[in-house]
Amino acid sequence: MTVPAIHIRQAVLTALQEDLGSGDITTQSLFPTPIPARAEIRAQEPLTLAGIALAKQVFRELDPQVRFPRSREDGDTVRPDAVILTCIGDGRCLLQGERTALNFLQHLSGIATLTAKLCQLIKGYPAIILDTRKTTPGLRVLEKWAVRLGGAKNHRHTLSEGFLIKDNHLALLRSRLSIEQACRLARQRAPHGLRISIEAESLRQVREALQGGADIILLDNMTPAMVQEAVALVGGRALIEVSGGVTVENVRQFAEAGADFISIGMLTHSAPAVNISMSIEPLRTRRSFR
Amino acid sequence: MTVPAIHIRQAVLTALQEDLGSGDITTQSLFPTPIPARAEIRAQEPLTLAGIALAKQVFRELDPQVRFPRSREDGDTVRPDAVILTCIGDGRCLLQGERTALNFLQHLSGIATLTAKLCQLIKGYPAIILDTRKTTPGLRVLEKWAVRLGGAKNHRHTLSEGFLIKDNHLALLRSRLSIEQACRLARQRAPHGLRISIEAESLRQVREALQGGADIILLDNMTPAMVQEAVALVGGRALIEVSGGVTVENVRQFAEAGADFISIGMLTHSAPAVNISMSIEPLRTRRSFR
Amino acid sequence: MTVPAIHIRQAVLTALQEDLGSGDITTQSLFPTPIPARAEIRAQEPLTLAGIALAKQVFRELDPQVRFPRSREDGDTVRPDAVILTCIGDGRCLLQGERTALNFLQHLSGIATLTAKLCQLIKGYPAIILDTRKTTPGLRVLEKWAVRLGGAKNHRHTLSEGFLIKDNHLALLRSRLSIEQACRLARQRAPHGLRISIEAESLRQVREALQGGADIILLDNMTPAMVQEAVALVGGRALIEVSGGVTVENVRQFAEAGADFISIGMLTHSAPAVNISMSIEPLRTRRSFR
Amino acid sequence: MTVPAIHIRQAVLTALQEDLGSGDITTQSLFPTPIPARAEIRAQEPLTLAGIALAKQVFRELDPQVRFPRSREDGDTVRPDAVILTCIGDGRCLLQGERTALNFLQHLSGIATLTAKLCQLIKGYPAIILDTRKTTPGLRVLEKWAVRLGGAKNHRHTLSEGFLIKDNHLALLRSRLSIEQACRLARQRAPHGLRISIEAESLRQVREALQGGADIILLDNMTPAMVQEAVALVGGRALIEVSGGVTVENVRQFAEAGADFISIGMLTHSAPAVNISMSIEPLRTRRSFR
Amino acid sequence: MTVPAIHIRQAVLTALQEDLGSGDITTQSLFPTPIPARAEIRAQEPLTLAGIALAKQVFRELDPQVRFPRSREDGDTVRPDAVILTCIGDGRCLLQGERTALNFLQHLSGIATLTAKLCQLIKGYPAIILDTRKTTPGLRVLEKWAVRLGGAKNHRHTLSEGFLIKDNHLALLRSRLSIEQACRLARQRAPHGLRISIEAESLRQVREALQGGADIILLDNMTPAMVQEAVALVGGRALIEVSGGVTVENVRQFAEAGADFISIGMLTHSAPAVNISMSIEPLRTRRSFR
Amino acid sequence: MTVPAIHIRQAVLTALQEDLGSGDITTQSLFPTPIPARAEIRAQEPLTLAGIALAKQVFRELDPQVRFPRSREDGDTVRPDAVILTCIGDGRCLLQGERTALNFLQHLSGIATLTAKLCQLIKGYPAIILDTRKTTPGLRVLEKWAVRLGGAKNHRHTLSEGFLIKDNHLALLRSRLSIEQACRLARQRAPHGLRISIEAESLRQVREALQGGADIILLDNMTPAMVQEAVALVGGRALIEVSGGVTVENVRQFAEAGADFISIGMLTHSAPAVNISMSIEPLRTRRSFR
Repeated sequence: MTVPAIHIRQAVLTALQEDLGSGDITTQSLFPTPIPARAEIRAQEPLTLAGIALAKQVFRELDPQVRFPRSREDGDTVRPDAVILTCIGDGRCLLQGERTALNFLQHLSGIATLTAKLCQLIKGYPAIILDTRKTTPGLRVLEKWAVRLGGAKNHRHTLSEGFLIKDNHLALLRSRLSIEQACRLARQRAPHGLRISIEAESLRQVREALQGGADIILLDNMTPAMVQEAVALVGGRALIEVSGGVTVENVRQFAEAGADFISIGMLTHSAPAVNISMSIEPLRTRRSFR
Repeated sequence: MTVPAIHIRQAVLTALQEDLGSGDITTQSLFPTPIPARAEIRAQEPLTLAGIALAKQVFRELDPQVRFPRSREDGDTVRPDAVILTCIGDGRCLLQGERTALNFLQHLSGIATLTAKLCQLIKGYPAIILDTRKTTPGLRVLEKWAVRLGGAKNHRHTLSEGFLIKDNHLALLRSRLSIEQACRLARQRAPHGLRISIEAESLRQVREALQGGADIILLDNMTPAMVQEAVALVGGRALIEVSGGVTVENVRQFAEAGADFISIGMLTHSAPAVNISMSIEPLRTRRSFR
Repeated sequence: MTVPAIHIRQAVLTALQEDLGSGDITTQSLFPTPIPARAEIRAQEPLTLAGIALAKQVFRELDPQVRFPRSREDGDTVRPDAVILTCIGDGRCLLQGERTALNFLQHLSGIATLTAKLCQLIKGYPAIILDTRKTTPGLRVLEKWAVRLGGAKNHRHTLSEGFLIKDNHLALLRSRLSIEQACRLARQRAPHGLRISIEAESLRQVREALQGGADIILLDNMTPAMVQEAVALVGGRALIEVSGGVTVENVRQFAEAGADFISIGMLTHSAPAVNISMSIEPLRTRRSFR
Repeated sequence: MTVPAIHIRQAVLTALQEDLGSGDITTQSLFPTPIPARAEIRAQEPLTLAGIALAKQVFRELDPQVRFPRSREDGDTVRPDAVILTCIGDGRCLLQGERTALNFLQHLSGIATLTAKLCQLIKGYPAIILDTRKTTPGLRVLEKWAVRLGGAKNHRHTLSEGFLIKDNHLALLRSRLSIEQACRLARQRAPHGLRISIEAESLRQVREALQGGADIILLDNMTPAMVQEAVALVGGRALIEVSGGVTVENVRQFAEAGADFISIGMLTHSAPAVNISMSIEPLRTRRSFR
Repeated sequence: MTVPAIHIRQAVLTALQEDLGSGDITTQSLFPTPIPARAEIRAQEPLTLAGIALAKQVFRELDPQVRFPRSREDGDTVRPDAVILTCIGDGRCLLQGERTALNFLQHLSGIATLTAKLCQLIKGYPAIILDTRKTTPGLRVLEKWAVRLGGAKNHRHTLSEGFLIKDNHLALLRSRLSIEQACRLARQRAPHGLRISIEAESLRQVREALQGGADIILLDNMTPAMVQEAVALVGGRALIEVSGGVTVENVRQFAEAGADFISIGMLTHSAPAVNISMSIEPLRTRRSFR
Repeated sequence: MTVPAIHIRQAVLTALQEDLGSGDITTQSLFPTPIPARAEIRAQEPLTLAGIALAKQVFRELDPQVRFPRSREDGDTVRPDAVILTCIGDGRCLLQGERTALNFLQHLSGIATLTAKLCQLIKGYPAIILDTRKTTPGLRVLEKWAVRLGGAKNHRHTLSEGFLIKDNHLALLRSRLSIEQACRLARQRAPHGLRISIEAESLRQVREALQGGADIILLDNMTPAMVQEAVALVGGRALIEVSGGVTVENVRQFAEAGADFISIGMLTHSAPAVNISMSIEPLRTRRSFR
């Protein structure tokens, strides 16, 4: 359930450079010397936590001696007003890292929280929720990690991790090949460790895909009723993935219709940020600082 | 209203590397040779366009000979089903760039569209809508560009572009300095080209900030009624910025209350993606290709 | 069958920086002004060509106006003494790029040539030759492209592109899980687009893997005789991949034994460079230069 | 005999990113929590060791708390089945780093081992074996370090580290300058800290180079008999370097012929990987882990 | 008064790579094993110190176990022959870092020393000395930090940190807008946290700028007498910045003339390096080493 | 006399990112649309030109369609008020690139101009002026190119390009080896293409160096009289390089004393910027623009 540490360090470095510019002039001007302080990061609403590893790295990058006496874990369900992370270090570094740490936490926890909500909605059905490649440019690995923390599974990360024939591939192919032929060609040319997925927009196409030996049939923009029909037609000979237009309102219907997988772009492209805030206070005695 | 070309090229390169991984195995397997094609990118809902410059760069990076016979401009207001961009080039490159181009367009146009909506809501009032530093890590320059395209203005991009004393600065200072003293210290130490902004959470603090000579007073998490009272108190001796809890529902009340600026985190951290799609079709004759 | 242009540009840039250091002092000292020249790159032995795209990019990076009036294609079979590439440009740039261009061509064509030889050896059998992750650090995408040019297929590029339970996974798991249980757990947790591969070192393990529902069974370090037995046992219920100790001498036996796939580390970690050289001559008349 | 730490860290980072992709899905799926383990890396054949510093850095990058209770040194001669490195750490990190660590060790030790073999073959003669710039793109500093570990010396790393007039420089010059004139021009323009080397393909050219004051004469593609004649002709007035077509079979003859230096491209472009493997086992008790 | 640690690490890494090339062949050749040593860095002339943080990072990057038993602070005034920094570590790393550490110290202390001298010259006047964007490419953040250490303040770091209408903006605008109109347009479009600065080359332009509501008027290339007149004209309604042709000889006259700010390009583009040297000696007993 | 184009592109990119920050707010605010313009860059004092290649690249990076109808060449001697470069393009891009282009030109031409002056001072003597490694961090390749443009030669660029035993090497060695022994050891271990240089601080050390077979003896901080004595002692058996304390005042004396090489740190660490300025004017008619 983890993400490579290299990605975390790189993302934090990029984000800090972006936020610091040539330096935090406000903090530098007001505090010429170190000032021992404690910061508390709190949830302002119920949420599924994602990004603690990044928030810690933000503060470590700025103050190698920062300590975290209390910390919740990525993936935890957190109640409003709960303390997510307590940091003790140079107050100037805490001030400088505040926005960057919160930006990671709010964005990624937003994704994890929405994902958890959708997973909850189809509880009891065998269907599994998947994300998509509709992610924010530059953050795919982190956003897909947040999706896993929320309880769903990842679709392919890159165009090299999965073999999926989409409508636009078919549009370019069709003058030459039928869907069935495309499936056979794919099986022959695809890497041997990958299953063949193909989009179908009608029952006729589902039938052709089955004849071509597709492993996974992706039903794009179908209604739950059409999905149910397709599931019956396939009868377990391929896996069924549903995609397009899935929302909080209708996700349960797609699960009921018998889909094996439900992939949802909204998880990563439209999850609103959750509300998380940070407060700082000076530490009374220098003794407790370092 | 433009964004440095260096940022666009770098963002596109990062995004393509992230999406391509070791290569688009589906497209490579199905199309061993170039295939002339036309792609059309269409709005699926009304929107304010942001990201055309990035979408074009995505396709240019993949196919240096791609052409764009029709294109709308960044900042345009677009109706549902309108063609945003037409691309003619090697269909394999169009397929490979599709997701990355759409990810930029959907995310940035989402921000521009929400911004335009909020600007529309306060039309007629002198208040100006601002964004914040609550942006997606790695995309700040682009997201703030989308905000400008939507009709609002940018708050500082980095911690070195503005001098803003926030609640957490005050918390660390207060044992030593009053708000008034903090403002005077700031004026003395801040870069000479910057105005001094300070957060105030009560009318008493507003008064202190005025006495300290603050240029801008940031009213954090106040109700419209409190804002109105603060505006009266200040009487034009400083600019008033409102922040915290501003939504589509209440933005007009804050404008009515007389704020000069209304800064809204939601613009960049919670704008949902707008729906934009791309279709590809083969070009009949090779003659029209290159 | 192509490799992303981004990889080619990046690899060439890295290689040129590595070779140029602070500048080619010999060439700079001897030739203070441009000198129109023609270079010919020739095969010194029979080979399968890989790297022309890189060689061209090397010269383009140094001299944006270089031309290539004659060029063979990546993947071509080339006879000794055949001209692979003719370049016309500033002789100083041709001299500076010579070693870097040849290093790419010799290394990658070495891999393609060895691969083609091995593919030839099993001609007539359905077995498919695969590479491995035993590549030279930093060159994986290019080396695997050379393997494809040689006629074989690629195994996974990265640890995220395939699900493969190896002996060391089993060693850590076994105190807790049987092979059968490991396969079931994998199926449940693996990305839905991937097949499950598992290593087996004995017929007993092959049986367990089958019961666990493995899609691909990787027979590690087995003799052709053992492979034949395993193939019989599996009877088509899973794909059979053979790995470990495969050489030019025995590859045909493994194909005969009925393996579906034969993965060979030597393709990328021990293919000797092929002999390719470059000669330069001045162009008589300035008129033919640019 | 060391290589800058900056190169090691950078090479390891690049290699790990290349191998991990978006993450090791197999290991992540099978082991949700840390699992204390011991790994042993063993030689499977006699070899001269190169790359231990890289292997350690691979594991440290993944698990900052990994320990190495036993380790051989780079440059050591190692017998088959000897333990090269023992690692104790989180088994998941050991699994993730295995291939990358082995790729460095097998490739670099392959170079060091071949180099040591060639040095051994000319033992007793004053000739010194050198490498060339025929290295794998991106790995020059590391490969040349492996050559030093094998007991030979390095030729120039970059085009700015040595002044060497090759056949292709002469081809472009010759219409204008004789070899003798080229040597004089070189001496005048070359950096003052560098000797002048020049390629000669015949005894006549050797004579011209001597008259021009060359410090080092590079005999390209000559037979041992021709080399002997050239050595006699030069009579100590310049250093003699032999290059081209040197193999395990004939290296001793070139040493016997009296060359001062024998430069061999094969050391870096065609050294086969040596066989090194890694086994992992769980640590019984959690007590011994951290 | 600090500079972000990220900038320091990045600058040191770049500088070391630039200086080490493929490795320090002299030191590697002479010292095959570690050699405990003490280095002392001394001022050879009176100076204001800038760059200690970089010098330490240089040695830490090369030898993670280096110690600094004695160190002066950045910003200190140092007498000739004073020890600035004592380092204890592997003598090979001290030798390798010597030049890079001294290059940073000599360049940045040169800037700080010149700045301190100029600040001293106007002591007693309210005028504040500023730097400019006339910095050495790649070193702006560090050079501006040295300026602060010398006692002056920074002008904007980047084109996004300040709003300044210069003569060339006016040249492009003037066919369309008066200075007064330009100021009004600027106020309307500039970020709300920034003051509006505008260049004026005559008293007439100063008057127009005042009417346009400029916050800061930049008097370019005026004599002290003209500045005095402008100050009288403005009468405190805007801040006055003087720029162009300011030297050690005339800076006091500009301060006397009543300017609020005096910006001086020479601080960063022409400050000569100060003389700082380093001596190394072996440590007698190994016991005191690590 | 050229510098690799890769260095130029990289240096310009770094410098532009450093100067633009998140964008040129002044220019963006005042000029919402392209504005055809002509810029002229002029020398304000006599100078030797260095950096034209960089200035052009700055404007090309910002406006790919910029044209340069008039341009002087790097290395040219330029009179005051002469036009160095005329640019025609979008005035907004000219404004944005102005400072970066001028920073390169002023800094590098400052170095070339000082170098040319020193070369002129020793005209008629065989001595050759060299630079050192005392360069501005990050700009070594460019600064050494400026030195060449000024008419001097380069000392080594990196620690791997020359073998030079300095006082601090000797300090660490001396407890073990004499200077003579150090020279012999160096000859044995140094790369074969490099000469051996060693520092000498007394005639006794010069004698030892000669006995050890040093190729170049570096006389550090000697007076011209001492240099003369050393030259006589050496009698042509080694090259003599003088270093330390060389100035415009005494350089001729060192040349007179018979040194072969005079290396001068001041060339790169203390050359003042030369005065170069840029003016922009709008182009009357749109027709002449693009």
